[in-house]
Amino acid sequence: MNIRFYNGKILRTKENHSFEISEGELWVKGNKIVYLGDGKDLDGVYQRLDEPFIIWDREIDARGYVIMPGFKNAHTHSAMTFLRSFADDMPLKDWLYNQIFPREAKLMPGDIRHLCKLGIMEYLTSGITANFDMYLNPMEIAEASAECGFRTVQTSGLNDFTRSLSLLEEDYRIVNEMSELTTFLLGFHGEYTTRRELMEGVAKLAEKLKSPVWLHNSETEKEVKECRGRYGMTPTQITEALGMYAFGGGGYHCIYFEEKDFEIFRNRGLTAVTNPSSNLKLASGTAPTARFLEEGISMAIGTDGPASNNALDMFREMFLVTGLAKVRERDAAAVPAEEVLYMATAGGARAMELSDCDSLEEGKFADLILIDLNQPNMQPENDFVKNIVYSGSKSNVALTMVNGRILYEKGEFFIGIDPKEVYAKANEIIGRMK
Amino acid sequence: MNIRFYNGKILRTKENHSFEISEGELWVKGNKIVYLGDGKDLDGVYQRLDEPFIIWDREIDARGYVIMPGFKNAHTHSAMTFLRSFADDMPLKDWLYNQIFPREAKLMPGDIRHLCKLGIMEYLTSGITANFDMYLNPMEIAEASAECGFRTVQTSGLNDFTRSLSLLEEDYRIVNEMSELTTFLLGFHGEYTTRRELMEGVAKLAEKLKSPVWLHNSETEKEVKECRGRYGMTPTQITEALGMYAFGGGGYHCIYFEEKDFEIFRNRGLTAVTNPSSNLKLASGTAPTARFLEEGISMAIGTDGPASNNALDMFREMFLVTGLAKVRERDAAAVPAEEVLYMATAGGARAMELSDCDSLEEGKFADLILIDLNQPNMQPENDFVKNIVYSGSKSNVALTMVNGRILYEKGEFFIGIDPKEVYAKANEIIGRMK
Repeated sequence: MNIRFYNGKILRTKENHSFEISEGELWVKGNKIVYLGDGKDLDGVYQRLDEPFIIWDREIDARGYVIMPGFKNAHTHSAMTFLRSFADDMPLKDWLYNQIFPREAKLMPGDIRHLCKLGIMEYLTSGITANFDMYLNPMEIAEASAECGFRTVQTSGLNDFTRSLSLLEEDYRIVNEMSELTTFLLGFHGEYTTRRELMEGVAKLAEKLKSPVWLHNSETEKEVKECRGRYGMTPTQITEALGMYAFGGGGYHCIYFEEKDFEIFRNRGLTAVTNPSSNLKLASGTAPTARFLEEGISMAIGTDGPASNNALDMFREMFLVTGLAKVRERDAAAVPAEEVLYMATAGGARAMELSDCDSLEEGKFADLILIDLNQPNMQPENDFVKNIVYSGSKSNVALTMVNGRILYEKGEFFIGIDPKEVYAKANEIIGRMK
Repeated sequence: MNIRFYNGKILRTKENHSFEISEGELWVKGNKIVYLGDGKDLDGVYQRLDEPFIIWDREIDARGYVIMPGFKNAHTHSAMTFLRSFADDMPLKDWLYNQIFPREAKLMPGDIRHLCKLGIMEYLTSGITANFDMYLNPMEIAEASAECGFRTVQTSGLNDFTRSLSLLEEDYRIVNEMSELTTFLLGFHGEYTTRRELMEGVAKLAEKLKSPVWLHNSETEKEVKECRGRYGMTPTQITEALGMYAFGGGGYHCIYFEEKDFEIFRNRGLTAVTNPSSNLKLASGTAPTARFLEEGISMAIGTDGPASNNALDMFREMFLVTGLAKVRERDAAAVPAEEVLYMATAGGARAMELSDCDSLEEGKFADLILIDLNQPNMQPENDFVKNIVYSGSKSNVALTMVNGRILYEKGEFFIGIDPKEVYAKANEIIGRMK
């Protein structure tokens, strides 16, 4: 499809974590952005593109909309949609062991593929164009994304009870080859669920495949304390000691960090992915976001899964990233809006190795969204970026495009399946577990 | 207008702060709910209503929707819409004295009336059917609500620099008489902006008019410390000592409370209104919500104004009320969803003396909303209340009705003014201050 957006306000990402808005056009040809500019001297543009003209499949008047890069949801477990609002308001351990694990054990082949589609739909409504997923069956997750036309990077949920090293290598190979929309980076669930030998195996595999490594890291005080009991080191320190990070990677949550942990993240160029809603809802704590930024450590934002959040909504997460940092630092100037928007877009893309769709630039994949300014929460237009981060909402997302395809527009989904079927199936899956 | 909703899931409020959902119909005649039930034995219903039949202006198939009482936004400064995203990410004092106050001083007659309409539009998109407002010109605020058909309870922003005791009594009388949609309760800005004599005057007026009294109370540590320096008492204690609470009332924010403050609130039956987004964004702190509930103190939820929040969105506030309480108490079971939804509806109504539209019951005013379940964030349907509080969003609000009139439906406003005009005017107002 060839799609021309004109009259829009285009949000460009700058190197210093800030943004610039300019009026103009954005052209999508196939799955790529081929032109971005003020729409003047179009003859010159065609010449440069080496095309006499382009036949447009759609020309979209974007007046009153900001065109911006899609959000990257840098940590989630999409298929856990079936457990949304199933078991809330209970202590973490009871939640995980008595509610979550027993239900996950009852999942049947095909369920995860289907439940991921419900997650993908919710991402699209929130302007999320790619997710960084970790769950039980990487094949089904990748199939769901490929079928919907959605972009998914995966890591492994490998631990003492799930998957194995040989499966990990197979997952890595198959998912990376399956579709241009699905990739896989090495990882495992977390130190507290994985014995040393298994972690050593992951480190070796990272060396062999030259892959970054990802894991849940320092989400709770208990996790860090127990790790210290086992190894005399924090999760960051033991994974570093095992040689995990020769090719980068990072951690999810990253709440309870000490000096040496910051140092390791900084020196290795790792990314800290923060998950504020989930950290509140499970009473885990709040991340030292301002400190990470001070250290120059790259950050990204994730929703975590729908059983612990329970929304898959980047707007809620963005507000929380800055709000929680401000109250933690007792400083209303901490972690300004621009920094948060950078995390939610380019920061996530860096973590997920999606540098080819991290921002709006000619030659990059067309993963973009339209933000409707003609709604009361986006008025007056004092500052577009601050409006998006502080008062923006899913209801402002008018269109979500992934890899050049419009998957969501004005409340409708174009992912090859009827939403009602997705909802019915999700209800059926949880229904048989009650 | 006579409007019949059928096939809906009706959310009824129970006395113990819980809710019940039942399938059925809800009839609105004029501005009141006249029937609520399973839709069987309609002959009996007509007999009871003493009507042979009702000619419906609209019959709305509510299949796939929850019909619930509208949210009550129990603390806000609606007209501050013009300052949304105008001055963020700066320390509180700099924000207030160098950015906010100088702009407020430049407001011209008519501006507040207009800026309130922008706020009202945003409330409608978030399912808010009434607001508890405090700002500079009570007449204009009340006019805006009466013109739009929106319900607004006001208190006064009286302080050493704004309004006076005689104006306060006049505001009380005029606003309470202006329209069935606008009421006024006594109040003043806060202890830290109001000298003792003025507070004593408010207390006397409360006695004379038998009105509750409202104020910003213990929002920051500094406020409480300085108050203690002046009076040897906290803001709660000095206002109690001055005899403010003979007819109830309460405080906004209520973050830094000590034992005796809780005792006063409990004994006087006062309401603590919490404003979590604003408290995060201004780095003020987090309220002791779990403690208030433990003490049996009534609570309500407010967005605060759009200059400090910056969204006027009850869904964001609801999630934060429970999320922040959970992490503050280090207990994922703290402040469950039902309790939060009660605060956001009946709790707010109690604070605002709106017992005639606090819940869905025959004879009450029809202030209600429709929540669209056929969206990914509301699926599967494991628990409607938890879905609304934990994953609900403005995008689920399909219809907002105030006093029997549909003011918002599927993205469109019916408030007697073109949204574009409201946006243009807001941009013009802030434009002339830059």
